[in-house]
Parts: sequence; structure tokens; C-alpha cells
Amino acid sequence: MKITIINGPNLNLVGQREPEIYGKKTFVQYFQKLIAVHPDVEFVYEQSNSEGELINLLQKYGFECDGVVINPGGYSHTSVALADCIAAVPCVVAEVHISNIHARESFRNHTITGAKADVVITGAGLAGYDLAIQFLLGRVVK
Amino acid sequence: MKITIINGPNLNLVGQREPEIYGKKTFVQYFQKLIAVHPDVEFVYEQSNSEGELINLLQKYGFECDGVVINPGGYSHTSVALADCIAAVPCVVAEVHISNIHARESFRNHTITGAKADVVITGAGLAGYDLAIQFLLGRVVK
Amino acid sequence: MKITIINGPNLNLVGQREPEIYGKKTFVQYFQKLIAVHPDVEFVYEQSNSEGELINLLQKYGFECDGVVINPGGYSHTSVALADCIAAVPCVVAEVHISNIHARESFRNHTITGAKADVVITGAGLAGYDLAIQFLLGRVVK
Amino acid sequence: MKITIINGPNLNLVGQREPEIYGKKTFVQYFQKLIAVHPDVEFVYEQSNSEGELINLLQKYGFECDGVVINPGGYSHTSVALADCIAAVPCVVAEVHISNIHARESFRNHTITGAKADVVITGAGLAGYDLAIQFLLGRVVK
Amino acid sequence: MKITIINGPNLNLVGQREPEIYGKKTFVQYFQKLIAVHPDVEFVYEQSNSEGELINLLQKYGFECDGVVINPGGYSHTSVALADCIAAVPCVVAEVHISNIHARESFRNHTITGAKADVVITGAGLAGYDLAIQFLLGRVVK
Amino acid sequence: MKITIINGPNLNLVGQREPEIYGKKTFVQYFQKLIAVHPDVEFVYEQSNSEGELINLLQKYGFECDGVVINPGGYSHTSVALADCIAAVPCVVAEVHISNIHARESFRNHTITGAKADVVITGAGLAGYDLAIQFLLGRVVK
Amino acid sequence: MKITIINGPNLNLVGQREPEIYGKKTFVQYFQKLIAVHPDVEFVYEQSNSEGELINLLQKYGFECDGVVINPGGYSHTSVALADCIAAVPCVVAEVHISNIHARESFRNHTITGAKADVVITGAGLAGYDLAIQFLLGRVVK
Amino acid sequence: MKITIINGPNLNLVGQREPEIYGKKTFVQYFQKLIAVHPDVEFVYEQSNSEGELINLLQKYGFECDGVVINPGGYSHTSVALADCIAAVPCVVAEVHISNIHARESFRNHTITGAKADVVITGAGLAGYDLAIQFLLGRVVK
Amino acid sequence: MKITIINGPNLNLVGQREPEIYGKKTFVQYFQKLIAVHPDVEFVYEQSNSEGELINLLQKYGFECDGVVINPGGYSHTSVALADCIAAVPCVVAEVHISNIHARESFRNHTITGAKADVVITGAGLAGYDLAIQFLLGRVVK
Amino acid sequence: MKITIINGPNLNLVGQREPEIYGKKTFVQYFQKLIAVHPDVEFVYEQSNSEGELINLLQKYGFECDGVVINPGGYSHTSVALADCIAAVPCVVAEVHISNIHARESFRNHTITGAKADVVITGAGLAGYDLAIQFLLGRVVK
Amino acid sequence: MKITIINGPNLNLVGQREPEIYGKKTFVQYFQKLIAVHPDVEFVYEQSNSEGELINLLQKYGFECDGVVINPGGYSHTSVALADCIAAVPCVVAEVHISNIHARESFRNHTITGAKADVVITGAGLAGYDLAIQFLLGRVVK
Amino acid sequence: MKITIINGPNLNLVGQREPEIYGKKTFVQYFQKLIAVHPDVEFVYEQSNSEGELINLLQKYGFECDGVVINPGGYSHTSVALADCIAAVPCVVAEVHISNIHARESFRNHTITGAKADVVITGAGLAGYDLAIQFLLGRVVK
Repeated sequence: MKITIINGPNLNLVGQREPEIYGKKTFVQYFQKLIAVHPDVEFVYEQSNSEGELINLLQKYGFECDGVVINPGGYSHTSVALADCIAAVPCVVAEVHISNIHARESFRNHTITGAKADVVITGAGLAGYDLAIQFLLGRVVK
Repeated sequence: MKITIINGPNLNLVGQREPEIYGKKTFVQYFQKLIAVHPDVEFVYEQSNSEGELINLLQKYGFECDGVVINPGGYSHTSVALADCIAAVPCVVAEVHISNIHARESFRNHTITGAKADVVITGAGLAGYDLAIQFLLGRVVK
Repeated sequence: MKITIINGPNLNLVGQREPEIYGKKTFVQYFQKLIAVHPDVEFVYEQSNSEGELINLLQKYGFECDGVVINPGGYSHTSVALADCIAAVPCVVAEVHISNIHARESFRNHTITGAKADVVITGAGLAGYDLAIQFLLGRVVK
Repeated sequence: MKITIINGPNLNLVGQREPEIYGKKTFVQYFQKLIAVHPDVEFVYEQSNSEGELINLLQKYGFECDGVVINPGGYSHTSVALADCIAAVPCVVAEVHISNIHARESFRNHTITGAKADVVITGAGLAGYDLAIQFLLGRVVK
Repeated sequence: MKITIINGPNLNLVGQREPEIYGKKTFVQYFQKLIAVHPDVEFVYEQSNSEGELINLLQKYGFECDGVVINPGGYSHTSVALADCIAAVPCVVAEVHISNIHARESFRNHTITGAKADVVITGAGLAGYDLAIQFLLGRVVK
Repeated sequence: MKITIINGPNLNLVGQREPEIYGKKTFVQYFQKLIAVHPDVEFVYEQSNSEGELINLLQKYGFECDGVVINPGGYSHTSVALADCIAAVPCVVAEVHISNIHARESFRNHTITGAKADVVITGAGLAGYDLAIQFLLGRVVK
Repeated sequence: MKITIINGPNLNLVGQREPEIYGKKTFVQYFQKLIAVHPDVEFVYEQSNSEGELINLLQKYGFECDGVVINPGGYSHTSVALADCIAAVPCVVAEVHISNIHARESFRNHTITGAKADVVITGAGLAGYDLAIQFLLGRVVK
Repeated sequence: MKITIINGPNLNLVGQREPEIYGKKTFVQYFQKLIAVHPDVEFVYEQSNSEGELINLLQKYGFECDGVVINPGGYSHTSVALADCIAAVPCVVAEVHISNIHARESFRNHTITGAKADVVITGAGLAGYDLAIQFLLGRVVK
Repeated sequence: MKITIINGPNLNLVGQREPEIYGKKTFVQYFQKLIAVHPDVEFVYEQSNSEGELINLLQKYGFECDGVVINPGGYSHTSVALADCIAAVPCVVAEVHISNIHARESFRNHTITGAKADVVITGAGLAGYDLAIQFLLGRVVK
Repeated sequence: MKITIINGPNLNLVGQREPEIYGKKTFVQYFQKLIAVHPDVEFVYEQSNSEGELINLLQKYGFECDGVVINPGGYSHTSVALADCIAAVPCVVAEVHISNIHARESFRNHTITGAKADVVITGAGLAGYDLAIQFLLGRVVK
Repeated sequence: MKITIINGPNLNLVGQREPEIYGKKTFVQYFQKLIAVHPDVEFVYEQSNSEGELINLLQKYGFECDGVVINPGGYSHTSVALADCIAAVPCVVAEVHISNIHARESFRNHTITGAKADVVITGAGLAGYDLAIQFLLGRVVK
Repeated sequence: MKITIINGPNLNLVGQREPEIYGKKTFVQYFQKLIAVHPDVEFVYEQSNSEGELINLLQKYGFECDGVVINPGGYSHTSVALADCIAAVPCVVAEVHISNIHARESFRNHTITGAKADVVITGAGLAGYDLAIQFLLGRVVK
């Protein structure tokens, strides 16, 4: 099983920004825990602040992975281009948001990219990534 | 650990309605599988088509459970009263939607009730309930 | 032929409220006339002010009747849950409004529930119920 | 009893266009059936694709008929001028739509012309014309 | 001096419709008074219920008259085509509305056609036509 | 003088929820004080979380009381059905909101039900109920 | 016959501002011409940049004049208070705008104050004031 | 106890305007009754049609009174400046509207100034002022 | 190959109106050039200012031609009826606008009729007609 | 060089209102510092809570000063009349807001008056006035 | 003659994605056909998924080519920055969309970038590129 | 003191594009003047057309500079991602726009990124950069 995690803009700052809220753990450290807990999964991790680069990454991994976990950050609410790309790739795509987008400013309530994803998990903190992975792995009561 | 699952309007028809889409498994059958997989959890299951009854149930269980999994169905998009109730109860609330609400009619893109929940999981099918339970149980990489 | 008539909120006040407009005839009296004119039809009549109870009734009769005549009253314009229910039941559903909803306040111009019904008849007064029944019975030039 | 049926734009194509949906019966054939079933009614049938001609026709027949059945087609959603005309003529006007306008694109959900009609019947197929006629004739339980 | 008066839909009914409001004088009778009061003006009077015919008339007279008084009726609020025509003709165009469009339904508050006219006079009753004529004739303090 | 107080959804939690804000006094305790201060008034107190039950209660008491004090809670902003009911009953209806609805989220700024009430008092805390009662009793400078 | 002309904000700058557009004639000079042409009319002329002062003036003259010509300038599009005042005074009120408000920015297309006036004349330049006066004097074919 | 009543635009016309609706009592007469009923209160009464003067008054009395009763009239729906002023003064502010603003035109449904007031009482007629005073005096069951 | 060109309102004025912009060539002159360049095409050219006549023309030629080039002018942005007609006819329809509708007023940015056409070419001047013809003829790299 | 500073509603309260935020320095004290730092500038300082008075002031100083610094406060978001005045005066106008209007409620995001000013400086606190002055003086790298 | 074709996000997937719709021909293969048919044209072909890179490319080629054919894909509907760039470059720009944007989701109906282009061709499939080239080459009846 | 200037899309064209408006000075030339006037400031200058690269730059310099001057160009009005980044970095951020964004198209009136900046200066031309620098340096009367 091969899963790619693609993080969008500003998610490289997790752990550095507002540590009283997000903790002092960086996403890379969290990623290490994911690897340790899921030793049978072949993981790839990518992060970019660029909308175009996120499309490049999704075009690359979306055809060769079993599943993609994507957190498009602020692009979720504005990017028709990224949404079109999610619709174009054949693999299962799970969109994750650390905070609950429905509880924030109204322009964050809807996710254009999420409309093309299979699953959207929002508000679970970093744990949302693991929920998405469990969904992709089928390790869940169905 | 005590978890209550509260299903809203028309969710009692799952398994009976459009079986080619939703399968022939009723929610009660799915609930049996959840019980079997999580023997250490004390489950309660409630369903009602009534907005007021859903508030009654949430007021009852929201003060005595560790967590609530709620699928408010069509009330998600219209019920200020139910949203107020979610905000009022002290337990953790995870909202689940079987289909991806962001991919449907625009009036389903936002969930008023979900804005007051802790987590919203949408599009994972019945498996969304188990993801929510795993989140409530903390059985997830954090 | 079995037909259920389901009336929504405040329709139990017809005949009592503003008799100079609605006349002094209650809906139950009108229902007696319907029974008399259509002796071959097995009628059921239900009324409730509760959105949830209306869903319960529609779930009960919508699977066992040939047709349902529903007047959801004020819920027509707000209830996603009731609309979902109309879409879920297999029988033919005719929605009736006593007054012409297009001639009233703008929030009454569209009927969310009517969007899922087969037919919408509005403005014909109580006679709208009989038009709906004739349609359900097929007693009409097609 | 004199009743005029006025059909608006593109309704002359019924029977020719998409026969698998609308059947192979033209409106003129359907009109013959109406005449046969209602031998005591003096019918006039008019059709025009022109908004102005529809106003002309309604101005002509709306003062001399007992009732008018009108299907303004696409003009229902845009024509203030035709709506003003319906409001100006003294006879009873029943608006008919073959398909359920509430179930279609949002710009078809409201009918500007229907707001000035007495009755709006939508979704009953060609049978809607006969329901309208029965209403105009008073052949209905009131 | 040559002035054409062009009346739009339903204005041929003035005098016939709601005489307690509009009086029993038809527009043709009013037009006779205008002719009598302005003997030096060469008047043309046209009325049509058809948007296209109104464009035809404006194209015909807008190039050969000194001024046009137009009351587009309900087309004022919907007709981009008629507005384009007013913008295309070289003569001065004064738009008149018998009632005060700002005091009526919100969809009548703005006049698309009036945006291309030189002057808009609204609410003065039939006298609005004479005000428009005086403006076109320059019989006014400037 | 007979006055009914009808409380809507979640108002049964006053005193229990966020006591630092709402105090530790339940509405029932407050109601005892109202009874003590107004010994000449025949009070009825009802609370329900159900929109339909609120309509039932208003239909019951709205025809037999001198006045009704209603706090529809979250239904104020969504319920056409309850608003229709307020318009249907003959007694004077005063709507009360504990917090100032104009100072909260925009969807709470308008009250659909309040539009049909005689008086709306908002922001006065529990004291708003007594203000409403004084208004209904006429114990106020007019 | 007594007529008051009330000019709103910035209209004291006419003749000074952009003379290539508005000419070099001030409103006071134009007013002298009006007086000369209408010697039998008792004119009052007032101008203020203050919304409140405009209300004061209208309250003063609206009860004692036969007619008021008002150009509320920019307040036309924002002032509920001035509109309420126009509705409150018994005399006939004609609103004038020098430029055609329908041809300008969308926020100028509707006039809140004009909705309460009897007549609105827009786009006729300074001549609009004289048209309004002729209307108030009844010197027009009716 | 010192209370200032500040009335906004057109409220000086109460008693003069439409007496069949508002009665023949002027606000000054009503104010005399308030003084008589509340002899222990030091009252100030101010009225102005000017938004700026209302701000001046509120700035003056809002720092030295125990409470202010304000009816901003038409400015309630448009004045950010007056709302900012209400938020700036330290005393308790109760906003009163004679008619029920929720039952009128949609642009009157929300009160910008009321969003900054402590209490909003609407629809109680002149009695609303006394309810506001009782609230400010604390003569109410709390 | 048979192609019909249908021009809508005001397009008969091209060459006469604003010649510094549109040139002095009339559409009929341009049409002669098209005929000369495409001698193998059987052309029909129609123009009407009437929405209804445009529907008549499209109904006539849309069933017997290989392709239709239509420029609905101002009706593009308002006509549901004409859009329905384009959807009803079997031939390929190419919509042309001389100016770039996306660069003009916002109400011209979308074309209701174009939504039902196969191709929309906008901004190419008169050359847009020839591009449309080349597309219909298949004389283009595919 | 002559510069006028015009402050709008509630800005006379700076230093008095919320001193922990705005400091204890009044605007007059800040103005003294400006005078001291710019001894070669002839300053005028005006403040008014009245929209009309602000227009009066701008009309007075806008024709005789080299530049105006204006903070229209709450009128920025509502006053077409003040915006018209800014457009009418010949001098350079710099609009200043103490707080960042883009970071506040959505109705403060746009400034109608600022659209007619030359420069808008927002969020710099009182220092924004000095930035505006430096701009007007040309003491800035260009 | 030098022409640059710039393709935006996801257009590199044509031929690979949904071949039953888009065919099995890649854009590069199509580009070879264009080169073969137009041997006298010096072509450049660029594709990028990045909005910034598209601006870079347009800035580079827009100053040195005779014409640019651009398909901004999803950026058409969101990118003010790319639209600004199209407006900034001196060469002629033709925007092409493979599918008919007016027939798709409403957020695709308008093209922000197309508003700054000279021509917009939509719905012609890959042939739209050739139509654009013919327009740029002037090989079209004008 | 270390200050970074970050210019967004198309700002590299200043001096080249429309020199009659923007002058013939490039931003780099202007930057040299800034360096000369502020010799004690350690300046960095960056420009990118890419939204992602702008985020990269702001993440790099926003943690190590004393202040950032940013002109996000067209991304100001669309980029949630860039706004999130401004909110995340600890340094003071001043947003500059060369033209007055409030005076342009409505989609440019609000700046999403500016809502997260400390200061927004718009309309001052290139001088706006120097005003921003003076603000960051504290060389301003406070």
C-alpha cells in the first residue's frame, strides 16, 4: 500500500507557529509517528506553498499511489484548478483540515477542493491525518 | 467509555432505500458490527425524525456520555436550535455524514450544526461512524 | 386504490381561523365530501404540526399507499429533511397549497419539498386536494 | 362555458422533440382528446413563440372567456409584461407547466406570471391542462 | 418639430382597466388632447405589446424624429435589447412611467431602458407624457 | 388575567449551562418569582424543544389566554410554521429573547416569528419576561 | 400658490464645480429665472448639506406649502429618515435629479426618498426643476 | 437616578401625523405622564432630526446619566456613526421603536444601532419607553 | 452544406450606427463576402428584433440546416425561451458576439442562450461569424 | 503650505474612550505635536459629528487649502453625500483611519468616501495622520 | 508570424484523462498537427500548472510575439493577477476553452482573464485553438 | 533595522508598462532611491509573480526582519493562503497598493491579505512604499 501525504501552504509552520495552540511538534515529527504506527505503508510526504506545485505533486502521485491525503490549506476555498486536478486523478483522495472549517470565517465553510475529494475530515487536529489513512487502508468498520 | 450514536431524519431508511447505492445492510446491522468490534465501549443508539426529539436526546446523553456521534441529516443545514444544543452540552461531539456534503447541492455544503461540533467527517460512507468512534476513543495517532 | 392525505402545521385551524376567508368548513368536513365523492378510494387522513411526525407519517404511508397528497404548510419552504423523505418514498406524491405561493412573500415562492414531489398544485383553495386526487387516480385526460 | 388555452414558446414542438420523454403525441392531438372529453366547452387554442403575441392573445380572450389556461413556457420566469397582462384581464387564469418547475434549475423555481394567475399546476405532464380545465369548470370537490 | 410617442405592453388597456384608478379616458383620448394643445407638433402614436415591434418602431422613428416619448411598460425592467436600441438611435428619448416605479415592487425600481434614455419621468400619471413633450420641445426654464 | 409562558429549545438548560453567564437560577426558579410578584395572574408555563409541540402549545393557549409570552429560541430565525401559528391565534403575543439578537451572528438579527408577534423584547436577560408580562397586563404608561 | 425648493448636499456648488459640464450658472441664478417666469408663485428656496436640516426644512414647509420640489442629492440613496419625512408631510412632493440616476453607478439607480415622493424627474438637467413646478402647478395636459 | 430620552428624526411629529394611528397625544404630552409616574427620576428629553446632533446628545448625556432611552428612528438602519457612539458611552442604553421593526420592510428588520444597545424593545407603542425606563430603573423581576 | 445565420435585435443597424467603431460596412455587405468566400455553402440570412420571431426562425432552420450561426444580441442575457429553443433543435448551433461580452457590463458576462449552444465566440468582431462557419464546416484542425 | 485636518464622528472621544487601547492622549494633544514637528505648515483642525457639517467644512477648506486630511469615521461606509463632496473639491484629499478597516466587520471593509480620496491610510494609529501630512507635503521618496 | 500557445493547469493531462471524452490524442500530438498545417508560423508551446509561471510566460512572450493563445483552465475564474497580466502585455491575446464554460457550473460561466483578452472561444474542443490561430493570423473574412 | 520589500505579480513591469501613467522609472530604480535616502536600513528586495513563492519569501523574511512592506498585487483580493501567512509571521507587515483600490472595480475594494496586515496604504503611488517604511521605522509623529 502506497500513500502520499500532500500539505499545502503554511502547513510547514506547524510546531513553529503559535505553539500554545498547535503544540511544539512539527508535522515532520508527527509524520515519523505515522510511519512508526503504519510500518506496512509506503509513505511519501510533500509540502508546498505553491498552488501549481500542489497540482504537479497530485498529478505525479495521484496516478501511482493507492491513496492521497491532502490538506490544501487556504487553497481549499479558492482553487478551481486544484479541484479540477483532484477530479482528474484516479486514486482515492481524502482531504484533511486540522481545525473545523465550519466553525471559522464563512469563506472557509465550504471547500471547493473537498467537493472533488472522496472524504473530508475537519476539526480532528493532526489526528485527522491518521483517520484519513485508516480510511484509505480500509482499517475501519464498513 | 460510553458513546451515544444519534441518527437524524430518514437515516432509519438506510438499507431499505436505494439498496444498489447504500447496500442492503440496515444501520442497525451496521451498529451490531460496531458493538462487536468495540466490546469495551458502552454504546447507546437512538434515531429520530424529529428535530425536537434530537435535541431532547442530545440534552440527555450529552451530559452523561464521553462522546456523541451525531448525523443530523437534513437538519444539519437548517437547525439553529440543534446547533445551539450541541454548543450547550459538555461532551465531545463528532458529526458524521454518509455522503460528501461538499459534493452535493449548495445548500448542503455548509453544516450549521457541524459548526458547533468538534469534528466533521463527511463522505466516508457508514465507515464515517467508526472513524468518529476511533477519534472519540483516542485510538488514533496524535 | 389507497390514498393518504397528510396536512402540515396550522392546517388543523382551517375553518376556525379567518372564516370570512377560508369559510366555516373545517378540513375534516371537506374530507367527508372527498370520501363521499370517491367511494372507491381507501382514504387515510393525518395532520401534524411537527416536522418529525410528518416525516414519520410519510415514511409509514409512502411505502404502502398508491399516492400521497401532502400540504407541508410552512415546512415547504424550510425543510430539507422532509424533502429528503419525499424523495425516499416510492409512491407518487402530490403537493398542494391552498393559496398561490407564487403570489405571497418571496420566501414562500419556492417549495423545497415540492422540488421532490411529482406534482405541485397551488392556489386552487381546498379544491386543490381534489385535483391532486384526480391526478393520482388517473381520472384525467392524458 | 368558453375556455381558451394559450401555449407559449416551444410548446409547438411537443411530440416532435424528445419523443421518448414527451411521447409522440402532439399538443394538437392532445387538444382533440380534451375537446372529445369536454363536449360542452367552447374551446379556443392558440400558440405563439412571441411574448408580445401572447399578451395580444390574453388581452383578446381574457375579456371574453370564462377561463384561460396558459403555459407561458420560458416567459414565465422573465416576463413582467405578461404578468402585468394576467393581472389586467378579468377572467380566471390557470397557469400550467408540463414539468415540475420546482425540480429544475433555480431560475425556473419561481414563476413571475404565475404570481398573477389564480392557480399554478406544475409537474402533471399534459394532464395538467385537464386539471386546470376541471378547476375552471368547477368540476371538483370544493 | 416631430415627436413620436411609443407605448409598450398593456398600455392599450388604459381607460378600460381599473377605471377607478386610471380614469375612463383611454390613451387615445388623452393623445387627442395633446394634439390639441400642441398644434405645431407633428405627432405619431404607436403602441405594441411586442418587445421586438417596439424595437422596430424605435429604429424607424428614432432616426427621423426630433424626439421620442417612450413608456416601455414591463419591458423597462427586463429588456437589454430595447435598452441597446435606445442607445443606438440619435434622437432624444424621454421615458415615462404613469406610476412611480420607485414606490412599487423592487424589481420595478430600476429601469434598464431608462438608463439609456435622456430623461425619466415617473409618477406623474398621464401628465408625465406632456412633461416629456415640453422637455423635448424646450418649453421649459433651462 | 391568564398568561402563558412558552419557552423553546434549550431554554430548559438555563441555570445549568454556563452559570457564570446565566447565573445558577433555573427558569423554573425565576418563574416562581414571577408568580410571587404577580399573584393576580393565572400563569401557565410550558417548555419544549420541538417546533411542532410549540405550535401545538400556541394553538392550545393562544385561543384561551389573554396573552402569551414566547421565547422561540433558535426557531425564531428559521420557523415559518411557528410564525404562521402566531399570526393565526387571537391573543396578544410578546416575544422575548434573553440576549440581544441584534448583537449576535447575522442569522440571529432577524426574527421570523417576531415579525408576527406584537412586541419583541431582546437583550434584557430574564427580566425581559417580566417586561413582557407588564406589557400584557397594561401596567405601563401608555 | 406656494412652492418650496429644497436642495440637498453639494448642490450649492453648481456653477462653481466643473463649469464645462454644469455651466457657469449657479442655482441661485437659475432660481431667479424661475421666479421671473412664474411671477404668480410664492417661492421659497433652501439648501443644506445636512440630512437633519433637510428634514427640519421639509417638516416646516411640507405642512404649509402647496408643493415641494426636493433634490436630496446623495441622501436619496441612503436616507430612511428623510424618506420617512416625505411620507409624513401632507403636501405634494416632486423629487428632481439633475443627472439621470439610472445611468450612473448602481447604488444611485434607486432612490429611497423618491419612493415616498409623488413624482421623480431625473436626467433633465436644471430644467427638471421647472418640469416639477409645472406639474405642481397643474400646468400640464392631464 | 438620571435618565435621558433621546428621540430621533420625525418623532417630533407624533400626535400630529396620522392621528388615527398614533393618537392625538404628542410625545411631549406622553413625557409629562412619564414624569408624573416616576417622580424620583431626573428626566431629560431631547429630540433632533440630525444624526450628528443625536451623536452630540448621546456623547453629552451618555457619560453623565444612569441610563439613556433612545429611539433613533430611521437612523437605526443606516447609521454606523451613531452605533459607534452607543458603543463608546459608558451608560446603559435601551433602544425603543414604537412599531414592530420585524414586521415592516426588510431594511427595517435589523437595527445597526440596536446591535450596540443593551436592550431593544420594539412594537409596544409609546409604552415601550416606559418598559425601557422600568428596565433601566431595575423595577422588574430579575 | 446548408448554414443559416440568424441575427438578433439591433444587428440590422451595424454599419449605420457608430461607423467609426463598427465601420461603414453593413452586415448584408459582410454577408456578401461570406458567400463569395464559401461558394459551396448554401446560406440563409435572417434578422429580427423580435424574440418570438427568432424562436420561429430557429425552429424552422434548426431542423433542416447543418448548422446555425446565431447572434441573439441583448436576448442572450435574458431569454430563457430562446435558450430552450436552441436546446430543442437538432443542428449544431454556434453563438457569436461581435464584442467581448466578458469585458462589458456584468449583466452581459453570461449568456443564457450560449449555455445551450455548442460553441460561443465572442470579441472577434464580424470575423467571429466566419470563425463560426469554419467550425461548422469542419475546416479547422481537430 | 496650508493643510486642514477634518475629523468625523466620535473622534473627539479619542483619549477619553478606552484609554488602554487608544492611550490617554487626546487628538488635540496629538495635534499639538503635529504643529510642533511641522512648523512651516499652516494647520486648521476641525471636528464634527454631523455629516452635513463635515460637508460644509470640506466645501470651505477644500477650495482654499493645499491638502485635506479627513477621517470620516463611521460615515466612510455610508455617506454618498460626503463622497460626492470629496470628488467636488479641487485639493488633494488623504483619508485616514486609525484602525485597519479591512480587519474589522465586513461593512467597514470598503470606504465609499475613500473611493473619491487620493490616498487611504488605514491601521497606522494616530501616526496615520502624520503619514498623510508627509504625503501631502511631498516629503517622501517618489 | 510568431504565436505562443500557453496552456494552464491540468491541460497536460489531455489524452490521458477520460479518453472517451477527450480522445486519446495528447495536446502535444495536436500541436504537431497545428505545426504541420501552419508551416509559416513560428510556434512556441508552453504549459504550466502554476499561476505565477503562467504570468512569467505571458510576460515573456506577450512582448515579443504577434499573438498568444491562452487556455488558463481553472485560473480563468479566479485569477485577478493573470488578468492584470493579459491587460499589461501589448500583443493580441485569444483565450480558448475546450468545453463550453457557459454550459457548466455557474462559477465557470464568467472568465476574469477572458475579460482582458481580445477574443474568447469556448466549446469548440481542441479545434478552438486553431480558430484562435486563424483569428490571430487574420485568415478569416473580416 | 532590516526591512524586506516583497512585490507581487506584474509589479516587475512598472516603468515598462504604460509609462505615460506609471512613469519610465522601474521599481528597481525607485528602490535605489529608497536605499540612498535610508542608508541605515538593511533592505532586501524580492519580486515574484507566484503566489506560492510570495508565501515562501514571507515565511523566510517574516521571521528575521523587523518589518515587511508587501504589495501582493492581484493576489490581495483572492489569496486566503497568503493572508494566512501574513497572520503567521511575527514581524510588522505594511501592505502597499500603488493605485487607490477603493476607486477601482468592486472586486478590488477589499484586500483579504490587508485584513491580516498591520497597515494598508493605498493610492499614494510609489511614494506609498516610503510611507510604509517611515511607519516601520517609527519616523512619524505618534
